[in-house]
Formats: sequence, structure tokens, C-alpha cells
Amino acid sequence: MAEQHLPTAQDCAAVFERLRIGGTRVHCITSEVAAERTANTLLAIGCTPSLTYHPDEVADFVRGSDALLINLGMMTPTRELAIERAIDAAGGAARPWVLDPVFVNASRQRASLARTCHAARPTIVKLNGAESDGLLAPSADEVRVVTGAADVIGSPAGMVAVANGHVAATRVTAIGCALGAVMAGCLAVEKDASLAATAACVVYGIAIEQAAEVTGASPGSFGVVLLDMLAGLTADTIVKRAKIT
Amino acid sequence: MAEQHLPTAQDCAAVFERLRIGGTRVHCITSEVAAERTANTLLAIGCTPSLTYHPDEVADFVRGSDALLINLGMMTPTRELAIERAIDAAGGAARPWVLDPVFVNASRQRASLARTCHAARPTIVKLNGAESDGLLAPSADEVRVVTGAADVIGSPAGMVAVANGHVAATRVTAIGCALGAVMAGCLAVEKDASLAATAACVVYGIAIEQAAEVTGASPGSFGVVLLDMLAGLTADTIVKRAKIT
Amino acid sequence: MAEQHLPTAQDCAAVFERLRIGGTRVHCITSEVAAERTANTLLAIGCTPSLTYHPDEVADFVRGSDALLINLGMMTPTRELAIERAIDAAGGAARPWVLDPVFVNASRQRASLARTCHAARPTIVKLNGAESDGLLAPSADEVRVVTGAADVIGSPAGMVAVANGHVAATRVTAIGCALGAVMAGCLAVEKDASLAATAACVVYGIAIEQAAEVTGASPGSFGVVLLDMLAGLTADTIVKRAKIT
Repeated sequence: MAEQHLPTAQDCAAVFERLRIGGTRVHCITSEVAAERTANTLLAIGCTPSLTYHPDEVADFVRGSDALLINLGMMTPTRELAIERAIDAAGGAARPWVLDPVFVNASRQRASLARTCHAARPTIVKLNGAESDGLLAPSADEVRVVTGAADVIGSPAGMVAVANGHVAATRVTAIGCALGAVMAGCLAVEKDASLAATAACVVYGIAIEQAAEVTGASPGSFGVVLLDMLAGLTADTIVKRAKIT
Repeated sequence: MAEQHLPTAQDCAAVFERLRIGGTRVHCITSEVAAERTANTLLAIGCTPSLTYHPDEVADFVRGSDALLINLGMMTPTRELAIERAIDAAGGAARPWVLDPVFVNASRQRASLARTCHAARPTIVKLNGAESDGLLAPSADEVRVVTGAADVIGSPAGMVAVANGHVAATRVTAIGCALGAVMAGCLAVEKDASLAATAACVVYGIAIEQAAEVTGASPGSFGVVLLDMLAGLTADTIVKRAKIT
Repeated sequence: MAEQHLPTAQDCAAVFERLRIGGTRVHCITSEVAAERTANTLLAIGCTPSLTYHPDEVADFVRGSDALLINLGMMTPTRELAIERAIDAAGGAARPWVLDPVFVNASRQRASLARTCHAARPTIVKLNGAESDGLLAPSADEVRVVTGAADVIGSPAGMVAVANGHVAATRVTAIGCALGAVMAGCLAVEKDASLAATAACVVYGIAIEQAAEVTGASPGSFGVVLLDMLAGLTADTIVKRAKIT
């Protein structure tokens, strides 16, 4: 990425402050195991979540929202149908959306569903190292985030790495799933999808670091304090702690 | 409401103490995002929750319970069918029930389902300001609770306002949904539905205030400590802190 | 049980240390209300959970796992079908599995499903006192755990009682359900099912005691700290605190 385009900590803080104003609605189709944490994470950063996946209702909810998250965890036949309609509604209403192809590498059916979703051109695709193993070739203008010890955000304009975070985040369920929701929130207030993804990784990664410091990374307490830290995060802290390269 | 009928703090404490004895079973049909908090809230006040919504099982569960909560959040085709059968079973077995028409204002399908449920005459209808906007006209003998900065309980006998609570409760998912379950628990031990609803708003609102005080309203900790406060609440504290007008 | 076969605290600690190495995958079909705690409990003891129940995917997930939990809580038509296929896949791939027939005593449909599952010969059957009331006669080589003030593990070789635990565990939802997942984890690394079940009851019971001590058994905090204690548990503590007779 050309030096002049590398998102700065200030850019990330500015995205975050727009979320803090409130009123940003994010619709999420996600797994049962991630639902509560996803909703509470969005609330902690100032967004209003909804999580309905009734096939006959989901389009109304997507059109009433500012951005959409499609998370393929714990897929069910009902959610498969809802996802198809939610993606259609997002396309029709020009809503940005994030695809998180959870466990795409664990079943043939999941891989096939992920490919169908991917063909509809998500704004951001977010996956971990195991999931990114060749199953979904990036499309031309896609922003792709591969999470790990450092999160790597790739886009047509280049690559950004965010080194914020802590391994404790892998020891509590749905922490990664909720990052997808933070990305959707950032996309709702920032059209530059690479900056939105970077801001999400920075903000969430800093809160993860703070929660790990406070709790000694004990998983029960860590999961609780992560929400406290997200809710208390300030632009100053973001600027001080961001690790973007 | 005539002055002599205004529920007192002592009345509310008495309802709460009946729950503390234990053995009150409350069946809840609610959303995935609210399921765990709803169950833990009922356990914290001394009730035994069940949450099954299999259409072929739900009637057995309702008949085995003392009260029923129908929460329309995250509706699915399976739950729609279960709700129909649960309401029938509650009617047949004379169980009191609470309707919480979550997001009735967000989709046409939800509004239609809410109207069908409402026509079956819930004992209490609980909704927030946005949801109460003209979609469901109160029936003659219904107790209706509109939640907000103050919760307003309306019934044929008049109006009661409960000013207990804290804005932190709006920043954690399913806190409002769990209040519906507390109302169902109170209904199981108190036939006067207006008093049951008032007791639920008072008891839950006081625990919310205490949790906000202890945690500085940080959302992760607040959600955890709210359960601690509910479990530790005493009749004395209820009498001291109730704000009923 | 002959004296020489009674599992020792050291045996239990050894099972636990094998889990700590990591890499043990446990697939769980469980209720929505138990999903998050079940996943976090497995993560806290070093296992990797998956929870998918799509009928077309579940066999792939079971074959990719080392052990399986079938929990009948909050049954749905979709999960009924998934359970049938998961049990078939476990049989075909020789994966050990745990059956937890939650609320088998609450509906006729649940009892019928439990009998069908039981006929497929689970490695361990785990239930509480109310559920064990005559509905499922133990098969010849089955290990059966009846939980309570003391957990009683019965097998063809005899009986073991584990007195670790605390009544606080009954006041938070899904604590018992998550014990079934711990048993599945132990089964993945220990072929002696009676020892695996005993180790699970000891390890989980000690963490429950510690969490109750630290939190005064306040339910919100107790549920959080239980995960911290599980994650921090050492072989030394297991040997010191185990109550096996």
C-alpha cells in the first residue's frame, strides 16, 4: 500500500467516534453461541443490534439497518434461507456487509454455502488462518481480513497489519465472531472499507489487550471486562496504543 | 387509580418473598439472544425456568409450569408454531401469561404475529415506547406495562409509575426481555396482575440501580452483578428503595 | 467396585493434564441456553468445541472430532434429525459419546427421543435425580452418572461417588449441561469411561467449590469465576481437593 494511504491511529479513532454518537443499526445473522456476545459488543461501541433470521422478516430488518453481518457459524436450514434473502436485501438497499465464513474448512456443505455468499460480493471478508486456506479466492475490489497474532487487512490498495490483541481472545467463544460485527458497525459510518476494517481491528484489539491486562487473561473475567473496556475506550487511548504497519 | 389501590412497596416485597420460597416454574418462549439471561434471572429470584419451544413438546411444558412468557424476539417459523400451541395450552390450563412483542415495529410479519398473540388475551402486555406506538390497542381487562425512564403500568383500575431502574439496562442485551420473565414469575404467585407487574418493575429496577452503582455502569460487569443483586435482594431493601407513584 | 479399581485423585489429574496439552476436539449438540457456557467450559479446560447441528453438516463435524455430547435440552425438529445423524456418525467412526437426557421427565416426546438415543448405546449417560427415575434402564456396559449433592458414577465394575461441588451450581443455568461436555472431553483422552466420568466430576466439582468460595455463591459472579477457576486449575489442587469414595 502506498505510504500516503496507510490508515493512521487518528483515522481509526475518528471512525470510532462516529459510532459513539449512536443511532447506527447493525443487523447480524450469526450463530446461537455468538448471539449474546455479538449484541453486547455492538451495544458497547454505541451501535444498536438486531439478530432476527426469520426468512419472511429478515429483508425488513436489513433495510432498516445501516450494515449487515453474515456469520456462517452453526448453520441451520432456516438460516441458510435467511442469508440468501438478507444478502439480496443488502444488495437492493446498497448496505455494506461483512462475510465471516466460520468453519468453512469443516464441512463440504459449509464450503459450498460460503462460495455462494462470496459470489454476492461482500464488502469485507473476515476469516482466520485455517479458514483462509484457498477455498475463497478474493474478488477484485474486496477487502479481506485474515485474523491472527497480527490481523492482516488486504485490499486492492495494499496491505495493512494490525498487531493489537492478545491470545486470551482465542480462549473465549465468539470473540472473533463479534469482531465481524464491529467491522459491520465501522462500515456503516466509513465508506473506505479498508479503513473500516483497520479501525475495527485496532479498537477491538486494544480493548482485548486492556481486558487481558486487568484480568490476567482468566477467560471468564476476560470475556466480561472486554465489554467494559470497549464501552470505556477513548480516542486518546486508541491513538496511544494503535499498532498499525 | 383510586388511592386505596396503589400497590405499596410492602405489597411488592410480599410478592417477592413468595417467589423466594421456591418451586415456581416459569416456561419461556424467547429469543436465542435472551435465553441464557432469562433463565439466570429466573433462577436468581428463586424460580425454575424452562425454555423448550418444540411444537410437539411445548404444551406439556406449559401445563407443567405456573406461568408463561411469550417473547417475540428473533422469531422463527418453528417458534411461531410453538407460540400458537403454548398460548392454547395456557388458556386450557388457566395459566397467566405475559406477551412481550419485541420489535413489533420492525417488520410487517412481526406486527401480524403480535396481533394474533394479543387477540388471545395475555394477562400482561409489556413493551417499550417505540413498540407501543398504536399497533396493539389494549383490551378491556389487560394490564399493560410500557417500559422507559419510568415504567408505566396501566390497568382498568388506573395507572402506576415505577421510577426504579438505570439507563445502563439499555446497554446490555436482553435485560428488558428478562423483565418479562420476572413478571411471569410474579404472576405465578400473585393473581392481581397490576400488582404482579408493579412488583416485577420495582424488584428488577432496584437490582438494576444497585448493579449500576457497584459497577459504574460498565456493561460487562453490570450484566453480571445484576444477577448477584437480584439473588441478594431483601424485602427490607425493596421497602426502602421502591419508587412507586 | 473392587478396591483396586477405584479411580484415584492422581488418575483424575492425569486425565486432566492430557486435556491441557490441547488439540482435543469435542462436538456438542446442545440447547441454545447452554451453547455459550458449554463452549467456554471446553475452551477453559483446553479443548476445542464445535456446536453445529445442521443435519447435512453434523456428520462431517462429528468425524472431525474426538468425542461427542448429545444434550436433549430445548429440543427442536431440526436438532432431532441432527442427533440421529450425529449418533450414526459417532458409531461409524468409533467416537465415544455422552448422552444427557435433559428434562426426559417433562414431556412424552422427550422421553421417547431419549429412549431412541439410549438404544444406540452411549458411552456415558449423565442425568440428575429427577431424570433418572426409571425411564432409561442402564444397559450392560454403560457408565451412568447421576448428579446431585454427590455425583454417583455406576458401571459394570462398581460404583464411585464424587463429593466435590457446591449447591451454587444449581442456581446458574447450564452448569450441569457443561459438565456433560467436560465428560466428553475426558472420554476423548481416556478409554476407561468410568475414570473419564469420575475425572470430569472431580475437576468440575473442585472448580465449582473454588468459584463458590471466591464469590460467596452470588450467581452472576459465580458463573464467570467458574470459568476462571477451570482455566487455572492445577494437578496439585486436584490431588489435594478430590473427594472420591
